Amino acid sequence: MEETKTLFVDLGDRAYPIFIGEGLLDSSELINPYIYGDQVLIVTNEVVAPLYLEPLFKVLKSNYNVEKLILPDGEIYKNLEVLNTIFDSLLLNKFNRSATLIALGGGVVGDMTGFAAACYQRGINFLQIPTTLLSQVDSSVGGKTAVNHKLGKNMIGAFYQPECVIIDISLLSTLPDREFKAGLAEVIKYGLIADEEFFFWIEKNINQLLNRDPKSLCIAVEKSCLNKSKIVSKDERENDIRAILNLGHTFGHAIETFFSYKQWLHGEAISVGITMAAKLSRDLGWINNNDYIRIRDLFLRCNLPVLAPKEVTPDKFLELMSIDKKVIDGNLRLVLLKAIGRAIITSEIERDILIEVL
Amino acid sequence: MEETKTLFVDLGDRAYPIFIGEGLLDSSELINPYIYGDQVLIVTNEVVAPLYLEPLFKVLKSNYNVEKLILPDGEIYKNLEVLNTIFDSLLLNKFNRSATLIALGGGVVGDMTGFAAACYQRGINFLQIPTTLLSQVDSSVGGKTAVNHKLGKNMIGAFYQPECVIIDISLLSTLPDREFKAGLAEVIKYGLIADEEFFFWIEKNINQLLNRDPKSLCIAVEKSCLNKSKIVSKDERENDIRAILNLGHTFGHAIETFFSYKQWLHGEAISVGITMAAKLSRDLGWINNNDYIRIRDLFLRCNLPVLAPKEVTPDKFLELMSIDKKVIDGNLRLVLLKAIGRAIITSEIERDILIEVL
Repeated sequence: MEETKTLFVDLGDRAYPIFIGEGLLDSSELINPYIYGDQVLIVTNEVVAPLYLEPLFKVLKSNYNVEKLILPDGEIYKNLEVLNTIFDSLLLNKFNRSATLIALGGGVVGDMTGFAAACYQRGINFLQIPTTLLSQVDSSVGGKTAVNHKLGKNMIGAFYQPECVIIDISLLSTLPDREFKAGLAEVIKYGLIADEEFFFWIEKNINQLLNRDPKSLCIAVEKSCLNKSKIVSKDERENDIRAILNLGHTFGHAIETFFSYKQWLHGEAISVGITMAAKLSRDLGWINNNDYIRIRDLFLRCNLPVLAPKEVTPDKFLELMSIDKKVIDGNLRLVLLKAIGRAIITSEIERDILIEVL
Repeated sequence: MEETKTLFVDLGDRAYPIFIGEGLLDSSELINPYIYGDQVLIVTNEVVAPLYLEPLFKVLKSNYNVEKLILPDGEIYKNLEVLNTIFDSLLLNKFNRSATLIALGGGVVGDMTGFAAACYQRGINFLQIPTTLLSQVDSSVGGKTAVNHKLGKNMIGAFYQPECVIIDISLLSTLPDREFKAGLAEVIKYGLIADEEFFFWIEKNINQLLNRDPKSLCIAVEKSCLNKSKIVSKDERENDIRAILNLGHTFGHAIETFFSYKQWLHGEAISVGITMAAKLSRDLGWINNNDYIRIRDLFLRCNLPVLAPKEVTPDKFLELMSIDKKVIDGNLRLVLLKAIGRAIITSEIERDILIEVL
């Protein structure tokens, strides 16, 4: 077994560790110190449950009163109704304020479990055990929790930090290829926004990553989490700098909303979104055409889409983007690239140039 | 017009003022400094709207993009479904992260609007303009927001502080008598838990209070808010001392839950709950019988109930109390009185003595 890496998200009295390694799922020495009460509810979904629920349940049940809840799988279930089933389960089991929630799953399970933890009795502890590449490098770190509203993604939520994040690289072995590649879109994002060297490393090691070489995956996850936690530590509640993590997301969310969170995976939408942001950055003369091509090609090597679907017309894009959270007082704010490894936030994009890219 | 009193809830970077006075509802000098963006949604209910919505709307609409939302009235509507109508309204109006919510109403409107503010786009600003005595002295101060779940009261919520609280005593002139008296139960509570002198003052001035003499009401509201904000400043998230604010609430919530939040007003249930807590304190030898009689008589002078309804049997009480948030790891924690003006939290009450009181 490789050594376990530990990163710390530095958020004062809400600081917490991220453990990264292989075979961590059933490591009680790692998990138990972060469970304070006697009651534990593991929340997972119908895809993850047959694979990883039992080993986790087994390791916890000798020490705690453990209950399980299996949610339906998919972004369309990330809503208030399904959230309420978590509260049902907690209340039916008479779980109290010292209970602990464990999110075992991808971004949807993590977002909903975290938000349930934020709200249940006005806040109980929770742990993140992300099982997809996307959630390991992105959604499990930083404390953004939410559910969707029919009029917009992640519109109802909280900033709420877990007690710890346990990232077991081994769990990625069962991840479907399409989801794995979608996760790589967020990995590439970290290189682009804040870490030129990491971007070069991804370019060089893309074959090992696509082959899911554990050592390369550990590095990619660690670098991604490190970059994210640095930014989150500076601006937990996204008042300014944290917004650069949304590179490609304003475009991407528009695509996801258009298709009602069906058909397109988040990472696929982000791949298109980042490519659009890179194109816009090039058209503004901020990055050169060569850099744009490098970015686009890296997504293409991951078999990720780089063109927006035709159904989403420029007008539709503008309409969907105007309801995005990143819009402040009616001004469309976008994250664009000044260079590979340097993203900036701007609200001074002229409508004409934007429509050209759309 | 009397002078406006200002109290501060000292919570570091979440500190905020409470303004108390007469005729404050349409005071734009007081309200405007706490609205930062351009968008304002006033949330109220069908009872308050005809009385006070227009004056507030009028004073705001010259400076802001103001929308209104009128909720159904009553604790039974304090649930996730009705909460979602606030999100609907915010999203249909394309309100963004710099929007401000204003809660114009009693405890239900305040709790729901505050919780909606906590969750919408992971947190937007909100102002409290409480219109009932209960909400003026209790629920509008301290940042507890929540909705009910069918299995328990206030089970889903957040600690989320307003930008300011504007308490206009004049609004109490239209409050129905039964609700006004129910509000006095919480006023009496503050004397009992932490302020012997205030309890004596209430005893002496109970007739003026029942006659809604504005000067006496101002003093009662100010003293109540002062006592509450002192305790909240010490322990925002109710890890210990804040729990003394729940004097009578464990018993009271059991009654409210039994009747599904119908029939009994919160203050009426609390009146019974506090009387039960006082009786238990007497049976334990902590306060003398004379003090118990004084407490009970003060509630009786307000025409408030002091006996639990027969339908709620001791067994039913125990069952309903065991799901209360104040229960930690299966131990029933109660707030009891060591003296008038001194409440303590204990989990060491023997079952037999408790059942005797029930």
